[in-house]
Amino acid sequence: MITVEIICFGNELLFGKTINTNANWLGKRLVMLGAELQRVTTIGDILEEMAEVVQEALIRKPNVIITTGGLGPTFDDMANTAIAKALNRELELNEQAVGFIKERLDKLQKERGLELKLTEERLGMAMVPKGAEVLKNRAGSAPGVMVKENDTLIISVPGVPSEMKSIFDHEITKYFDLDPTKQFYERSIVVNHIPESELAKAISETREKYPTIYVKTHPHSSKASAKGMIEVEIHITSLCSDEEAVNLREAEVEIVKIIKTMKGTSDKKPKIALQNNDKKSK
Amino acid sequence: MITVEIICFGNELLFGKTINTNANWLGKRLVMLGAELQRVTTIGDILEEMAEVVQEALIRKPNVIITTGGLGPTFDDMANTAIAKALNRELELNEQAVGFIKERLDKLQKERGLELKLTEERLGMAMVPKGAEVLKNRAGSAPGVMVKENDTLIISVPGVPSEMKSIFDHEITKYFDLDPTKQFYERSIVVNHIPESELAKAISETREKYPTIYVKTHPHSSKASAKGMIEVEIHITSLCSDEEAVNLREAEVEIVKIIKTMKGTSDKKPKIALQNNDKKSK
Repeated sequence: MITVEIICFGNELLFGKTINTNANWLGKRLVMLGAELQRVTTIGDILEEMAEVVQEALIRKPNVIITTGGLGPTFDDMANTAIAKALNRELELNEQAVGFIKERLDKLQKERGLELKLTEERLGMAMVPKGAEVLKNRAGSAPGVMVKENDTLIISVPGVPSEMKSIFDHEITKYFDLDPTKQFYERSIVVNHIPESELAKAISETREKYPTIYVKTHPHSSKASAKGMIEVEIHITSLCSDEEAVNLREAEVEIVKIIKTMKGTSDKKPKIALQNNDKKSK
Repeated sequence: MITVEIICFGNELLFGKTINTNANWLGKRLVMLGAELQRVTTIGDILEEMAEVVQEALIRKPNVIITTGGLGPTFDDMANTAIAKALNRELELNEQAVGFIKERLDKLQKERGLELKLTEERLGMAMVPKGAEVLKNRAGSAPGVMVKENDTLIISVPGVPSEMKSIFDHEITKYFDLDPTKQFYERSIVVNHIPESELAKAISETREKYPTIYVKTHPHSSKASAKGMIEVEIHITSLCSDEEAVNLREAEVEIVKIIKTMKGTSDKKPKIALQNNDKKSK
């Protein structure tokens, strides 16, 4: 299983100006790719701290580190400088990146009539850590950057979600050396009128019986309180082969059986609804 | 200035099942309180890793560490155990926490007719690191937990947003020893038809002139591309006194002046809109 850490650069994430939807999107994608996301770290636009966070992640030796943000043309876009610093490498002008940037400027000039020059700020986006490769950005100007350090591949993508997604899907997915026999399966059981703590025992029994299946409860507090009732989602997941997936179904059936023996509130019978019947494709 | 780190416990955050809106909400609140959020770390429900992340944060000596998640009654709610492990302390039954939990069960019993017992799972929520205090949860069963280690205050709140928010606003805000003379000010300038990289120079000049003001550009990619145009938000922020806030206005005026001298696309004049006129109250 490929292990991954995500590092998100950006004051706007710490200030609460921007919700970190990038980490969420990447988390979903990585699950579908069969990779294991172990940690997400968000840090502000301070060069020393950015470099430190990269070094700390390298010590834990994940197969892949994905960084988001800090690749644009402004003063506070320091991802390349921070990664170079963390790896104790120089920055070098990457000619392929210059080509990508020129191509993008030409495109914008043709499509939108913008008069754009290859300014110093724009050339800054082509200054990458020595030995790095660049990744084409079909949705914006800043190229992605990929550099290997020992056994860890560091991949940097812009923070703008459309650019991050485009680079990930077009350029990065292929670096995940996947087990074609395994897929991510998930099912949800939504239970009303039984509190989470009452469900705890039912779930711990099933967990012991199916150690490769992950079962977790999530109280739906806001939706539920709006209707004045208790609602808990039991989320059952497994990364497994099609044959093993039958265990997931069995676990689901067993949990439902146990819940059916339970009492709800005095005036309401427990309500059970099954969701997410489909397995996720890669 | 009070320094803060947030640690979010929860596989659902890494899997991409749940967007980390808690870190965003807390980030906003901390900015308004005049505190400096330095880092957010998200980690899965693995006891050793949870304890490690807490230990790593303690080494950096922030004034406050806020943890979210892992306080409920189920097997994977391990925040108290992880913090106790990180601090090398025992867990102890907190009688006040038992009181809070009983009070909550009584309330649910009266209001919703639930027949709820003080099960082992529920008592588990009252097992806190030795020396910890507990914080009343008005929106759910799991009490918040607060424990001091050297000069760092570790505050744990549940991951359910309504409970996290309720505990933060009712119980935690008072621990922030604020500078009453400073407030958080922000203004935004939204510019159409000039790309971010063109704006970079205008902004770097203003930044040098007003070192206490933070200016950052955010391309509005998705909104903008939908309309086939370029849109960049210039976000100007400062934590300062009312008198100093005049600098923020000046910086805004100067940036607008510089932008007005710039060319947009060949067929479109740059469009400038000012937003967020209000200062944020504490």
